[in-house]
Amino acid sequence: MLIMAVAIRNTIGSHCLKNSGSLLWAVSSKRVRSDFSQEPIGPKVVTQVPGPESLQLLTQLDQIQNTDAVAFFADYDKSCGNYIVDADGNVMLDMFTQMASIPVGYNHPKLKEVMSKKENWTTFVNRPALGVSPPGDWTELLNGQLLSVAPLGMKQVQTMACGSCTIENGLKAMFIAHERRRRGGAPPTPEEMSSCMCNLPPGSADITILSFTGASHGWTLGAQAASHASWQQKLDLRSMKWPVVDFPCLKYPLEEHERENRLEEGRSLSEVADKIERYKKDGRPVAGCCVEPVQSAGGDNHASPWFFQQLQQICKENGVALLMDEIQTGCGSTGKFWAHEYFHLPEPPDIVAFGKKMMTGGFYYREEMRPQEPFRIFNTWVGDPSKIVLLRAVLSTIRDEHLLDLVSDTGGHLLKGLRELELKYPFYASNARGLGTLCSLDFPNTSERDQMIIGLRNRGVNTGPGGERSLRLRPSLTFTKGHADIFLEILESTIQNNCNL
Amino acid sequence: MLIMAVAIRNTIGSHCLKNSGSLLWAVSSKRVRSDFSQEPIGPKVVTQVPGPESLQLLTQLDQIQNTDAVAFFADYDKSCGNYIVDADGNVMLDMFTQMASIPVGYNHPKLKEVMSKKENWTTFVNRPALGVSPPGDWTELLNGQLLSVAPLGMKQVQTMACGSCTIENGLKAMFIAHERRRRGGAPPTPEEMSSCMCNLPPGSADITILSFTGASHGWTLGAQAASHASWQQKLDLRSMKWPVVDFPCLKYPLEEHERENRLEEGRSLSEVADKIERYKKDGRPVAGCCVEPVQSAGGDNHASPWFFQQLQQICKENGVALLMDEIQTGCGSTGKFWAHEYFHLPEPPDIVAFGKKMMTGGFYYREEMRPQEPFRIFNTWVGDPSKIVLLRAVLSTIRDEHLLDLVSDTGGHLLKGLRELELKYPFYASNARGLGTLCSLDFPNTSERDQMIIGLRNRGVNTGPGGERSLRLRPSLTFTKGHADIFLEILESTIQNNCNL
Repeated sequence: MLIMAVAIRNTIGSHCLKNSGSLLWAVSSKRVRSDFSQEPIGPKVVTQVPGPESLQLLTQLDQIQNTDAVAFFADYDKSCGNYIVDADGNVMLDMFTQMASIPVGYNHPKLKEVMSKKENWTTFVNRPALGVSPPGDWTELLNGQLLSVAPLGMKQVQTMACGSCTIENGLKAMFIAHERRRRGGAPPTPEEMSSCMCNLPPGSADITILSFTGASHGWTLGAQAASHASWQQKLDLRSMKWPVVDFPCLKYPLEEHERENRLEEGRSLSEVADKIERYKKDGRPVAGCCVEPVQSAGGDNHASPWFFQQLQQICKENGVALLMDEIQTGCGSTGKFWAHEYFHLPEPPDIVAFGKKMMTGGFYYREEMRPQEPFRIFNTWVGDPSKIVLLRAVLSTIRDEHLLDLVSDTGGHLLKGLRELELKYPFYASNARGLGTLCSLDFPNTSERDQMIIGLRNRGVNTGPGGERSLRLRPSLTFTKGHADIFLEILESTIQNNCNL
Repeated sequence: MLIMAVAIRNTIGSHCLKNSGSLLWAVSSKRVRSDFSQEPIGPKVVTQVPGPESLQLLTQLDQIQNTDAVAFFADYDKSCGNYIVDADGNVMLDMFTQMASIPVGYNHPKLKEVMSKKENWTTFVNRPALGVSPPGDWTELLNGQLLSVAPLGMKQVQTMACGSCTIENGLKAMFIAHERRRRGGAPPTPEEMSSCMCNLPPGSADITILSFTGASHGWTLGAQAASHASWQQKLDLRSMKWPVVDFPCLKYPLEEHERENRLEEGRSLSEVADKIERYKKDGRPVAGCCVEPVQSAGGDNHASPWFFQQLQQICKENGVALLMDEIQTGCGSTGKFWAHEYFHLPEPPDIVAFGKKMMTGGFYYREEMRPQEPFRIFNTWVGDPSKIVLLRAVLSTIRDEHLLDLVSDTGGHLLKGLRELELKYPFYASNARGLGTLCSLDFPNTSERDQMIIGLRNRGVNTGPGGERSLRLRPSLTFTKGHADIFLEILESTIQNNCNL
């Protein structure tokens, strides 16, 4: 991992994302702090979290829905920059940011400015059916925003309302492309068109999606079938018997375990090839493979660029489409706009899914994945232009404030701090790892990790869980070394407290 | 159908929706026109639709995604009230309203007012992870808005980002409740929790969802498996072999064919009971049944209150949950807030799904459908509070302007006009039917119906297709008798033109 972190720092001042011929990310070593003049100077804890006000609100909300996952109620009016304020007035440094979905901190002035402009209001109050009667400026919005940050070589884009819908439709696009290839590009037969109406073959084919243990791609029936991060996401659902391959279980720091990690990755890749072969023989061919650049909900499981290059190669050789799920890793939190840029793939993935910090769900796709008939990738709204209007402010902030550079810089500093803590408390903290500020640290078990999250929250830092025993860190792109230092100090005191040191 | 239409008119001045003890829809015979001072006085067609500007924009958009379903590009700034303006300046009376999703016309002043208020902006720029850290006013928003219009007897609500996600999660809730009942309320076993992680039984059970031919519940993998309205929605997808029952194919007007329609409904209900029994014997029990109060995309197929009462009874006797999909029929377009109010069900459906005009996806559910563990019905956003802030303005408009009364009144007038046309042109138009302004008319075949849509559009009326040969009418709730008269006149001239009369 250190190799990567070093690589990030080395590229500062020279990396750029070139798309459609335009240089979007200006080269600069200048560090600009986001304009949060009202941002608190540090956490301030006035009650336990959740405090009495949150607990009262919880009782009320619990009357009308299950609230078991609610951590606290927030006061979004008072939240600012990297700090979230809860209903009891506790000010917490937010390193979870609505499950990694707040791109440039709370109440960023540029986002407020979007709302203040009357010319934007019409987009918020007249939500169109984008597939049927899009607004006149829709292509311009897609080109100017979503496609301005498209992964290299990808020129097609489809918006969706949320992450789960994004994956569902990514799976659909892979199925549709697979079957079109099977037909040799011929139009569907009458038998196919009629049989699919009752969910029967040949129109409804028994084709499959390959996914990895520890993956988390979404919560709807298709997306959860490709997810394997928690039983809560899957239990009791009608699922699909799709191939599941062990994601490589690597040792950290990666650069100290290269040889054994390579073997482990090789084992996983062999299983990928085997399962693709076996399912093909069984008449249930694999149409697509879903993978996250860094498995996130599953516990920040990394794999090497070599692994992803080989995975792409195996997929390509077998006519299996590769979907890179960047819903959590995309939009800059690794220090590159898309995490898979680290992998130097010889060609783009077939589909790259986005969501969360991008303000909208959606996916980029290669020409081969483009449906050839109307209503194949469709629903009433297929996205929301008002989210792209907000994204415009986000992207200009990332650009103007050189936030990718900031993330790389802060990320290196944060990871260094986490490493120091695992060396200092080796019996308690381990496996410090990260790309940019997308970082993680392990604790001995689920219970200790959960106690760390609670302890941190009560000291004014909001974090999240990942996998069985990982602390998941997902700050906004505006997170600075100064914020990291505040966090690292509180992290150490929480470790000391929880270990009775 | 006439019986229903008459019934609607008879209840004007007395119907109300009572929830949580508060009388929400004031009794009144007063007609208030929505405040659209800028609304055009009629259609104005200056080019073919799509015109040259739309065609140019289409060429551009087609570079980056499939555009085969796009009808024209719209100018939402200029659209007002019941009129949509396209990119070429054509002014069309909109009777499709973004696939039935614009509740109170374009650019309603009350919605613009929401945007003008600074105190609302924070909700638009800080989208929370509602399941984890909801805003302090979330319960108040849910109680004050979504639950203020909940179907009688339903007190639980879950928001979602869109309609497809809504159905996916409705299916999940039914699966989870079914399996909890199977366990007798006991917690899941370790074997169930581990097996589901690889999509295997017993954790991933082979349970099923019963749906009807002609149904359209959504576009994601689970929702499409319960949908049977068009091959484009289903072809090439990995589907699920779930029971599908013929939806009753009734003769219109319903009141003239009561005896044979009852027989037809009885046949369908027998098939429901048979399939539930058969799938149970096969070890693939039916956990839930999805149904629309009026099948919409499938071609406005109606069934009688008796049918729905019997369906609920059969479901109840067999431990099958009933999901009433009101995504298209809900929010007032039938003259009642929820279409299933017409059915006088002895108890609420287990789940009532909403979307479209409600500005947000989501569903109401009975206590028995409530998940008992965290993260069972979950994703990053699970909805969007900014949509509820907009919904607040929609609901207050419906209330203040007595729009349910208006819809009933206009609907009766519209249906009467459609009836007159089918009597006048019996060789061409047939099966006029509707509840409120949710109306439909059939033409001889798909091609003639499509020509009607094109002809109407070029005369300044925007409508949509339904099923094989239906014209689907879905105006906003602000549609008046005056608008209906404009439409009926243009409809007749289009029929005459298309028939060479």
